[in-house]
Amino acid sequence: MSTQQALQNILQSKYPIVQAGMVWCSGWKLAAASCNAGIFGVIGAGSMYPEILDEHLEKMSKNVSTPFAVNLPLLYPSIHEHIDLILRHKVPVVITSAGSPKKFTKQLQESGIKVIHVVSSVLHAQKAASAGVDAIVAEGVEAGGHNGRDEISTFVLTPSVRDAVQIPVIAAGGIRNGRGIAAALALGADGVQIGSRFVLSEESSAHAAFKNELLRSKEGDTILTLKELAPVRLLKNKFFQDILDAYAQGADKEALAQLLGKGRAKRGMFEGDLIEGELEIGQVAAYMDTILPVEQIVQSLINEFSATKEKITNLPSWT
Amino acid sequence: MSTQQALQNILQSKYPIVQAGMVWCSGWKLAAASCNAGIFGVIGAGSMYPEILDEHLEKMSKNVSTPFAVNLPLLYPSIHEHIDLILRHKVPVVITSAGSPKKFTKQLQESGIKVIHVVSSVLHAQKAASAGVDAIVAEGVEAGGHNGRDEISTFVLTPSVRDAVQIPVIAAGGIRNGRGIAAALALGADGVQIGSRFVLSEESSAHAAFKNELLRSKEGDTILTLKELAPVRLLKNKFFQDILDAYAQGADKEALAQLLGKGRAKRGMFEGDLIEGELEIGQVAAYMDTILPVEQIVQSLINEFSATKEKITNLPSWT
Repeated sequence: MSTQQALQNILQSKYPIVQAGMVWCSGWKLAAASCNAGIFGVIGAGSMYPEILDEHLEKMSKNVSTPFAVNLPLLYPSIHEHIDLILRHKVPVVITSAGSPKKFTKQLQESGIKVIHVVSSVLHAQKAASAGVDAIVAEGVEAGGHNGRDEISTFVLTPSVRDAVQIPVIAAGGIRNGRGIAAALALGADGVQIGSRFVLSEESSAHAAFKNELLRSKEGDTILTLKELAPVRLLKNKFFQDILDAYAQGADKEALAQLLGKGRAKRGMFEGDLIEGELEIGQVAAYMDTILPVEQIVQSLINEFSATKEKITNLPSWT
Repeated sequence: MSTQQALQNILQSKYPIVQAGMVWCSGWKLAAASCNAGIFGVIGAGSMYPEILDEHLEKMSKNVSTPFAVNLPLLYPSIHEHIDLILRHKVPVVITSAGSPKKFTKQLQESGIKVIHVVSSVLHAQKAASAGVDAIVAEGVEAGGHNGRDEISTFVLTPSVRDAVQIPVIAAGGIRNGRGIAAALALGADGVQIGSRFVLSEESSAHAAFKNELLRSKEGDTILTLKELAPVRLLKNKFFQDILDAYAQGADKEALAQLLGKGRAKRGMFEGDLIEGELEIGQVAAYMDTILPVEQIVQSLINEFSATKEKITNLPSWT
């Protein structure tokens, strides 16, 4: 079986496009709209208490009849309660990140759940494949939110991961349109994961103030920072200026952790505090200027992908 | 006229592939081998005194009958002597970088020379287009050597520059194989520029010790550093450790410039001092393990590009 077919068997969506599970931005509404538009919807559980995840899974099952996933950062404190909920709700797919894929993969698979693991390097892709995951998301450094320490770009990472593992590879990071989908498939990916473009959807739970700030954002406005804690790509704002000031004063890891504190991501992305909040977003934010319904975004992705496929097909032969 | 046709008119090579002009690695031998293998050869003048460039241009004209370029960093101290040489030798194309394209574009064009300018952002692409350059190289942050301050990746930069200008766009940064060429064209580029892959050619003037060190290099071994001076991607070695130590001691711009000193790039890449030298290379270095003749590299690029084009053509339709 080809890796493309294997991915199709996992996702069972019309298109091999995964809507990224993102903290504070992807609740059941976005995931359901994604599934209903023919792509693969994902609930981002990294920002949900167990009772909130329970509620979102309830709503999801009432509104969607196709497979979907929960994105689960493995470092999450209530991870066992989350796993229990996932098993109880018979969630078809779990996308794990930020932790060892050895921990829960077997347990989830024994309950009939497919496991996809997010990596940012070939080394971690190989480890995930060894741990028996069903597919890999290979995410480049241009992606929003938490990122790998080696800062490998999507263009470099995708073909290298493709060559290193035998399981399906989903490319992520920097993909915002149909040209990007065609490029990712050319690089060897079996599918793509798209995040920031869906933050700027009507159905995302990102605060309106955050969405509008993204529309205004310009080239160079995102940056990878806090590398001493966990590298994160965010929009430069007053909070980021505070980080710079802390660095200038020689802040160590503890001082940075104290500055970051708790709840900044919620404050920024969910509550719309553009000053003190942490505004996680991908590098593509600079080049997007519309907030659209998911269905319209998906249609545009598909149309541009098809046009690009046509263009590549019609290129003169080089041999 | 399409931008693809316009690029073909500038390069006049069999394939729209530019061999990057790189300090200390791309003299006439590499450029000539590139031209003779059907791609577009470039002499990297950034590391050449005028008399050396003169010699390389002599050799080039004796060995090559197709168009080629000289890569000229505009901040180069003997820039006017270089320009005089380029005019005297009737070099068909000049690829300018690291400086304002307003400076020499008109002068060169009035002498019948085509001008391509290297940029790392949409903003600079637009400025270069306004200055009247004939084409643009849009180079992502994964590229080796000097890089833009906004750290935009090839995957993000290429479609955004494509949308912003009406002149030909050549994608660069992170491209090492035929899948990368197909991906770049999918993203909207009219051609590609490839650097690191040609450092690892038999004909490059990189020192054998540097080439062998690249073969040994692993994922995560390159890093973008010295951002206070001019951001540069290099291989981590003892000199990079010295940079880290300087940062830890709170080194300012002047202290960093003093540490860098003069001649480190030559020492590393041309003389093979792996300890004290500056070893500029792209992120792709980690994933290459052969030193090959240029002709073989080009053939492999073309074969893989053709196979990828075929693969994209045969993908099921999504509409």
